[in-house]
Amino acid sequence: MSIEAVVPFKPVNPKSRLSTVLSKAERELFAEAMLTDVVMALKEAGCNPFILSTVPLHCSYARVCVSTEELNPALNNLIASSSGPLLILMADLPLVTPGVVRRIISSSCDMALGPGRGGGTNAIFIKDRARFHVDYYGASFLKHQQIADQAGLSCEIVDSFRLHTDVDEREDLVELMIHGRGKAVDFLKSCGFSLSIEKGRVGISRSIEE
Amino acid sequence: MSIEAVVPFKPVNPKSRLSTVLSKAERELFAEAMLTDVVMALKEAGCNPFILSTVPLHCSYARVCVSTEELNPALNNLIASSSGPLLILMADLPLVTPGVVRRIISSSCDMALGPGRGGGTNAIFIKDRARFHVDYYGASFLKHQQIADQAGLSCEIVDSFRLHTDVDEREDLVELMIHGRGKAVDFLKSCGFSLSIEKGRVGISRSIEE
Repeated sequence: MSIEAVVPFKPVNPKSRLSTVLSKAERELFAEAMLTDVVMALKEAGCNPFILSTVPLHCSYARVCVSTEELNPALNNLIASSSGPLLILMADLPLVTPGVVRRIISSSCDMALGPGRGGGTNAIFIKDRARFHVDYYGASFLKHQQIADQAGLSCEIVDSFRLHTDVDEREDLVELMIHGRGKAVDFLKSCGFSLSIEKGRVGISRSIEE
Repeated sequence: MSIEAVVPFKPVNPKSRLSTVLSKAERELFAEAMLTDVVMALKEAGCNPFILSTVPLHCSYARVCVSTEELNPALNNLIASSSGPLLILMADLPLVTPGVVRRIISSSCDMALGPGRGGGTNAIFIKDRARFHVDYYGASFLKHQQIADQAGLSCEIVDSFRLHTDVDEREDLVELMIHGRGKAVDFLKSCGFSLSIEKGRVGISRSIEE
């Protein structure tokens, strides 16, 4: 049986830290492109994904549930409402591949955590969801480790830069331009972005003729 | 037979981008602590490491070779001077564990690359060193992929955030404080660094009484 996977998603005014390089409309399209990459990776890895959106959303390739609650209560209600394994994967991980998803869900531990850059948590896989609850924001990776410890759950830390790299800031776009293969990098290229090298450092630039 | 591993190292005025949070003397000690973590991970993984240093260096736990050449000619001379497998691992990777090293050197491909954040290359493993040369700086990861392609070498991309996270800037210290277990994080703590959370973002702060 395929593993249920939830991808929380905020369609309206997403990725505000990218507003120096992308307009609001572009950020919304970019966030959707990243979501598509994540959901497709989940499907290819054999998961049964659905999107937990803050507003109604048309999506042709996955179920959508709407919750107006904040992230933590929305996910904890979801955890409490059913049983069995659950994978929670963030929507801003366009480098994630089916292989990374398979590494997460094939963990031999009671659960697996995918740390995100800056102390966040990009993936949580729980074999028995009744024994866990989420606590996002701040150094959530450390909080989730502690929740696992307190529940006596063995926990694998998935060591993947593809999972670690959430795209929030301009410099994260460099990672996507170098390692991306899906809709999100295609969108960036269609906007005129390319890699640039200044004083030995790799950055991104955007062509004017758009 | 254990695999030869070289760790290039610049002991004098290293990690200049950390000069806003660490003095020159502290940066030198910090760079040495990171080097120790890397060399210890190599030894525990069964490699035979040596340090390729820009100046003479006293080191009790590994051989030291001195080369005053730039990084690329120094490494390419080393590659040309001998045969057999070689692992090149950067010195500023204090999150690298023996498990990560074993993942690199157990690649089934002709060679393996460990991408670094921002287009760099943090690890190069070559089974037959005669067929490869290095070209660091800029988007070296892409250059090294191209060199492998042109030489007809199959190349594994090692997907590890521990290998991807080179410590260059203040925000990289957050990763070390969260995921580090060795001498480098101990050094930071001894300097009074701790994690801090401001407006939901995780950063580092340094206590005044040092």
